[in-house]
Amino acid sequence: MLDPNRYFDPDPTIRTIARELYERVATRPLLCPHGHVDPAMLADDRPFPDPARLIITPDHYIFRMLYSQGVPLEQLGLRPRPGRESAERVETDSRRIWQTFAEHFHLFRGTPTAGWLRQELVEVFGVARPLDGTSAEEIYDEIAAKLATPAFRPRALFERFRIEVLCTTDAATDTLEHHQRIRASGWSGDVRPTFRPDAAINILAPGWGEEITRLAELTELDIGSFDVFIAALESRREFFRSLGATATDHGVHSPRAEELTPAGADAIFQRARRSQANAADAERFTAHLLMELARMSVEDGLVMQLHPGSFRNHNGPLFDRFGPDMGCDIPVVTEYTRNLRPLLEKYGSHPNLTLVLFTLDESTYSRELAPLAGHYPAVRLGPPWWFQDSREGMTRFRERVTETCGFYNTAGFNDDTRAFPSIPARHDVARRIDANFLARLVAEHVLERHEAEELVEECAYGLAKRTYRL
Amino acid sequence: MLDPNRYFDPDPTIRTIARELYERVATRPLLCPHGHVDPAMLADDRPFPDPARLIITPDHYIFRMLYSQGVPLEQLGLRPRPGRESAERVETDSRRIWQTFAEHFHLFRGTPTAGWLRQELVEVFGVARPLDGTSAEEIYDEIAAKLATPAFRPRALFERFRIEVLCTTDAATDTLEHHQRIRASGWSGDVRPTFRPDAAINILAPGWGEEITRLAELTELDIGSFDVFIAALESRREFFRSLGATATDHGVHSPRAEELTPAGADAIFQRARRSQANAADAERFTAHLLMELARMSVEDGLVMQLHPGSFRNHNGPLFDRFGPDMGCDIPVVTEYTRNLRPLLEKYGSHPNLTLVLFTLDESTYSRELAPLAGHYPAVRLGPPWWFQDSREGMTRFRERVTETCGFYNTAGFNDDTRAFPSIPARHDVARRIDANFLARLVAEHVLERHEAEELVEECAYGLAKRTYRL
Amino acid sequence: MLDPNRYFDPDPTIRTIARELYERVATRPLLCPHGHVDPAMLADDRPFPDPARLIITPDHYIFRMLYSQGVPLEQLGLRPRPGRESAERVETDSRRIWQTFAEHFHLFRGTPTAGWLRQELVEVFGVARPLDGTSAEEIYDEIAAKLATPAFRPRALFERFRIEVLCTTDAATDTLEHHQRIRASGWSGDVRPTFRPDAAINILAPGWGEEITRLAELTELDIGSFDVFIAALESRREFFRSLGATATDHGVHSPRAEELTPAGADAIFQRARRSQANAADAERFTAHLLMELARMSVEDGLVMQLHPGSFRNHNGPLFDRFGPDMGCDIPVVTEYTRNLRPLLEKYGSHPNLTLVLFTLDESTYSRELAPLAGHYPAVRLGPPWWFQDSREGMTRFRERVTETCGFYNTAGFNDDTRAFPSIPARHDVARRIDANFLARLVAEHVLERHEAEELVEECAYGLAKRTYRL
Repeated sequence: MLDPNRYFDPDPTIRTIARELYERVATRPLLCPHGHVDPAMLADDRPFPDPARLIITPDHYIFRMLYSQGVPLEQLGLRPRPGRESAERVETDSRRIWQTFAEHFHLFRGTPTAGWLRQELVEVFGVARPLDGTSAEEIYDEIAAKLATPAFRPRALFERFRIEVLCTTDAATDTLEHHQRIRASGWSGDVRPTFRPDAAINILAPGWGEEITRLAELTELDIGSFDVFIAALESRREFFRSLGATATDHGVHSPRAEELTPAGADAIFQRARRSQANAADAERFTAHLLMELARMSVEDGLVMQLHPGSFRNHNGPLFDRFGPDMGCDIPVVTEYTRNLRPLLEKYGSHPNLTLVLFTLDESTYSRELAPLAGHYPAVRLGPPWWFQDSREGMTRFRERVTETCGFYNTAGFNDDTRAFPSIPARHDVARRIDANFLARLVAEHVLERHEAEELVEECAYGLAKRTYRL
Repeated sequence: MLDPNRYFDPDPTIRTIARELYERVATRPLLCPHGHVDPAMLADDRPFPDPARLIITPDHYIFRMLYSQGVPLEQLGLRPRPGRESAERVETDSRRIWQTFAEHFHLFRGTPTAGWLRQELVEVFGVARPLDGTSAEEIYDEIAAKLATPAFRPRALFERFRIEVLCTTDAATDTLEHHQRIRASGWSGDVRPTFRPDAAINILAPGWGEEITRLAELTELDIGSFDVFIAALESRREFFRSLGATATDHGVHSPRAEELTPAGADAIFQRARRSQANAADAERFTAHLLMELARMSVEDGLVMQLHPGSFRNHNGPLFDRFGPDMGCDIPVVTEYTRNLRPLLEKYGSHPNLTLVLFTLDESTYSRELAPLAGHYPAVRLGPPWWFQDSREGMTRFRERVTETCGFYNTAGFNDDTRAFPSIPARHDVARRIDANFLARLVAEHVLERHEAEELVEECAYGLAKRTYRL
Repeated sequence: MLDPNRYFDPDPTIRTIARELYERVATRPLLCPHGHVDPAMLADDRPFPDPARLIITPDHYIFRMLYSQGVPLEQLGLRPRPGRESAERVETDSRRIWQTFAEHFHLFRGTPTAGWLRQELVEVFGVARPLDGTSAEEIYDEIAAKLATPAFRPRALFERFRIEVLCTTDAATDTLEHHQRIRASGWSGDVRPTFRPDAAINILAPGWGEEITRLAELTELDIGSFDVFIAALESRREFFRSLGATATDHGVHSPRAEELTPAGADAIFQRARRSQANAADAERFTAHLLMELARMSVEDGLVMQLHPGSFRNHNGPLFDRFGPDMGCDIPVVTEYTRNLRPLLEKYGSHPNLTLVLFTLDESTYSRELAPLAGHYPAVRLGPPWWFQDSREGMTRFRERVTETCGFYNTAGFNDDTRAFPSIPARHDVARRIDANFLARLVAEHVLERHEAEELVEECAYGLAKRTYRL
C-alpha cells in the first residue's frame, strides 16, 4: 500500500536517482523548528485519547474538507460555543465520528492529507487495510488498542520518530510551564518554545487589553507606555531564550514594516489602551512592531519568522459559533517588495539577523521572494506553507525559487503541524520531493551527482539546522 | 493524423495508464452545462452555411489570431457597423476567407484551436489532409459537400455527438422562443436555457434602459423601483426554470458582493433610471445584486455561475467599428477572498446554494479559489475558462487546486463554445488531460488504480451532472 | 562535464526529438537584439583584464549571491563611492577575488549562472576541471593565459561566437562615439546602438537636469518647453538610426500610458525644470512619454521595447555606498491590461509599430500578456527576462503563453547581458529549452515533426530577425 517509490517521477532515470538520493536521508533525525504540537502532551506523557479525538477533531486540515461537502461540524464532534448551539446534535461517540470520516475519505484523493494519513496508519499504527466505510470500525479498534500501550505514549513516539528538536509555538504570555516541566522531568527530548506575540501586537484583537494585563503581571512591569511595552516583550524574549527558544514567529495580515516616531508609536498605544484605536492605527502599530522585533532579533539573536497573508476566520458566522481554526482561513494577495523595504534596508544586511519569510501567495515566489533572498544576507525562504505543503506545492517552490536564490537561501523543512503522529510522514514527503527534484536536475545534467548528494542532505537536515541555529 | 495517444505524457508508464483511463470514458455522453450555442440553430435545424461562415467568421478565438499578425478583420469577412467602414474591402467570398485562414493556420501551432479544429476536420468532416494554403480549396469543397447532407444538420450532429444536455446562455429578456420551439417540435434533444441577466444588471451598459423596458413588458410589471426590478428578475427566473433552466450565469468585472440597504439600492436604481448613475454606483449596484442573486438561488435552486475578470472590448476603436466579441477581451487581476466574503458568509454554507466560480487569473487557483472551495459547502470550482481551456491550462488547474480542495469540489467540464461542431473535440481534450493527470498520480502512487478509475468517470460526467443538477 | 543532452527531458522519446531539433539550430549565427555589452570594448579591441575583473566584478548576477550569504562586496573587489568607505578592506588582488568566488561556487547550484559559467569555462576557455576552492588558482592561470592571446580579444571572440548582430543599450545623450569608431574601423562586426532615454524621461532621477542640458547641447536645441524636448528626442532617434539602431528601450516602473494635453505635459516639464515636480508629476510625465514614444516609433519605425516592474536599488543604504546595479533590484506586481490600454487603442493596431513587452511578474503571462499579444498586431512578447532567463523560467513562459498567442507573437531570444563571454552559453540554453519544449509537443502529438522543425528555427533566429527588423 505504501510503495517505496511513491512521489518519484515514473521516468526510470529520474526514479532511480531519486530513490538513491532519498535513501541517503530517509532515516536522518527530524528537525522540527516550526510547529504547533501542544507541549502539555509531552510534559504529561499521558496516553492519547481515541482515534477520532487524536486524528480528526483537532485537525482543521481534515474536518474542513467534510464541511465543504456538506457534513455539519457537529457531526464530527465539534462543539459550538455556549449559547451558539444549533438544532444539529453534537456527536460525542468517537466511533461514529470515525465512521463518518472514513465514509468521506475519498474526498481527500490527491491531497496531502490522504498521503500523510495513509502513511501514518501503516507506519505508526501498523494498519494494513485501506480506510473506508467498511474498514472503519476494525481500524478504529486496531488504533485504539495500540494507543493504550506504553509504546504509543507521546514521548515514546517522539523517540521512535527520531525527533532531534521540536519547537512549539507559544504566546508572549505563555508561562511555558509545560516546557519547564519537560526540562525538570529529566527526559532527554529536546522541546523548545517559540516566541509568537501576535495577541500582544494586534491591538484590535479581542482580548488585547487582557493580554497586556497578563504581560504586565508576568514581567512585573507597569505597561503604561509604548516603551515599557517594548521592554516587556524584550523581557519575555529573554525568558523564552532561557528555555531554549531560538526563534520568534509573527502571523500578520501584511508584511508591511514602517518605523514610527517614538511619540507616534506611543500615541497609538495610548489610544489602544483606551479602546479608541482604529484599523489604520492597528496596521501602523503592527508595521512599527515588525521594525522593533527585527531590532530585537539583531540584539538577542532569535531567528525571526514571518507568516503573512492569511485572512483568518473568513467565515464570520462559523467563527462566531465555533471559534478560530475551523478551516476557514483564506489567503490573500501579499506584497513583500515594498512592504518589507524599511525593515530590510535597516536590518537586512546585519549578520545577526535571520528573517525567514513564508507565503500563501505563490505568485511572489519568483517575483519577490527569491530575488529578496538572493540579495539580502538576512533573508531565508521558509518552506511551502499550509496549502502549499504538498507534493505539487513543494515542487513549484523549488522550480520557481532555485534559479534565482539557489538552495542555500532556503530554510529546510517545517512540518508546521499540531497532528503529532503525522510528523514522520510529513518529513518523508518533503525528503522524497526534494530528492525527486534533485534527481531531475541530475538527469538533465544541471547538477553533478555529488552535488545532489550534498544538497539532499542540506534539504533534509543542514539548512534547517543552520537557519534556526539549532 | 490524430494519434490515439495524443496529449498523453510520453513516459510509457503514464501513457499506458492514461490511455486505459481515457478509454473508460471516451464515449460517455456529453454534458454541456455552460456554452454559447445559438438555440435558433437547433430550433430551425437548417443546414449550416459554408465552411467559412460555420468555422471562422463567428469565432473570435480564431480570427483574433490572424488579426494579431496583421490580417484585417474585413479580409476575414467581418463587416464594420454602418458608418464605420474603412478603405478595407469586406471579403464576401467564403472560399477566399477560407483560403486566407488556411494560409495562416501555422499561427495556431501549439494552441488548442489547432487541436480542436484538426480533430473536428478529421472526426466530424472526415477530412484526412492537413489544412494549409495548398489544401484549402479541396478541403472547403469536402466540408461544403458534407454540410449539404441531412447527416450534417444541427440535430443530427447533436445526436451523433451524444450530447445528453446542452445549456445555452440567454439574456433575462430573451423570450426563449427557440427553446419553446425545440420543446414543441417533439425532438428529443435536451436543450436548456441559462439565465444571464448581465444587460439588466450593468446600469452603465448602453441599452440598460431599454433592457429594463423590455423586462417590464415581458413581466407585465411597472418597474419603477428596485423592489419591482427584483420581482421582475425573479419572475424571469421562474420562466427560465419552466423551460428547464438549472443555472444562472453572471459576467462581472469583479466578484465584489456587498449588501446595500433597501433605500440605498433603490436610490442607485432611481439615478440609473434618470441616466445619472456613475461608475461607483454601477459597482455597488452589481455588488448588491450578487447578494440578491445568491438569495434567489437559495430560494429557487438555480445553480449560480460567476465569470469575473474580463476587461471586455479592450480595443475601443475596434469595438466602435465592429462591436463586441472581436477577440479583444483581456483579463485583469481578480480578487475573490475579500470580495466574495459577504456573499459567502451569508449564503455560502446554505445547502440550497451551489456557486460555481471561474477565473481568468490563474494566480488565484491555489491562493484563493481552492481554499474557498475547500471550506464553503456552496462553492465549486468551474473548469479552466477561455484562454485556460487548453492542455497546459487544464493541467495547471488540477495541479494547483487538487491538493487543497480535492476533485470533488470541482465542477466537471464546460465546453463554453459557440462553435457547435467543435464540441466533441473540446470534451475529448478535457477527458484526455484529466486521464493523463490521474495517470501520473497512479504512476507516482498517490492514487490507487481503482480510485483513478472512479475519478476519471467523475471528471468526465458525474461532477458536472451533480454540480449543475442535471 | 558538458553533457550533450543537458537540459533535455530524460524521457527517451522527448530527449531524442529534442536533441535532433536542437542540432538543427545549434550552430546558427547569434542575433543579439537586446543587451548591455559595452561598445567601447569592441571599439578598442583591447585584451580583457584578468578573470576576476572579466567575470565577477562587473556582474551583479554573480556577486549578489555571495552577498546574500554574507560575503561583503568589498571582498569581491567592489569599491564604495568616495566618502562611503567602511572598515571593510577593498580587495584589489584579482586572484583572491577569484579564490573567494570559487570557494562559494556551490551557492549557484541549480542556477543559470552555474550553467552559463560552466559552459563558458569549457567552451570559451577550454577549462576541463570543475571550479571550486581547490582548482581556483589553476583555472585562474589558464584563463589569464588565454586572455593574453589575440584569439581572446573582443572582436576575435565576437567572430568565433558567430554573432550576426549585437545591439547595445545607450542613453539618449550618448555620443555613440564607440559605435562610430567601430564603423570607421573597417571591422565587419555588426554592432548597433539602442535608444534608451530613461535618464531624460524620469524627471525625478538625480541628474535629470544635467541630462536635459546635455541633450540641448547635442541637439543644438534650446529645450525650454516640452515641445522642444520632444523634438530633441526625435533628433536623437534620427541620429541613433543613422548608426544602425532599429529599436528603443524603456525601463519604467509601471507600463502606465496616458495622453496629457500639450499644456498639461508642458506644465509638468516646467515644474521639473524648476525642480518642483513631485512623484505624481513624474508618473504622469512617464505615462505621457510612453504615448509620445509610441507615436515616434510609428513614424520612424524603431521597434519599441518596454521593460517595466523592477524596483531599482531596493537596498537604499547599499545604493548609497556602491551605486546602481548591485544586485538589489527587486520586481514588483505589474499591470498591463489597464495601463497600456490608451497606447494600444491609439497605436496597437498600426502596421508600423512593434511593441515588445517584457515582464518580471510571471502571473501576467497567461492573464495579460498572451491575450494582448494574441490580439494587438503591434504586440510581441519579449523572452523571459532577468530572473526568468533560465531553464524553468523559459519553460514556464512557453507553457503559459503559447496556447493563447502561439509562437509567432513571441520575439525570439535576447541574451540581455553585459557578460560578453557568456553570450554563446546563454543562446545555447535558450535553443535547448525551446527544442525540449517543442520535442514534448511532438511526443504528445500536439505538433507534427515538420512543424517543430520550422518552429525551432523561428525560435533560434527568425522571430528575433523579423521582430527587431534586423
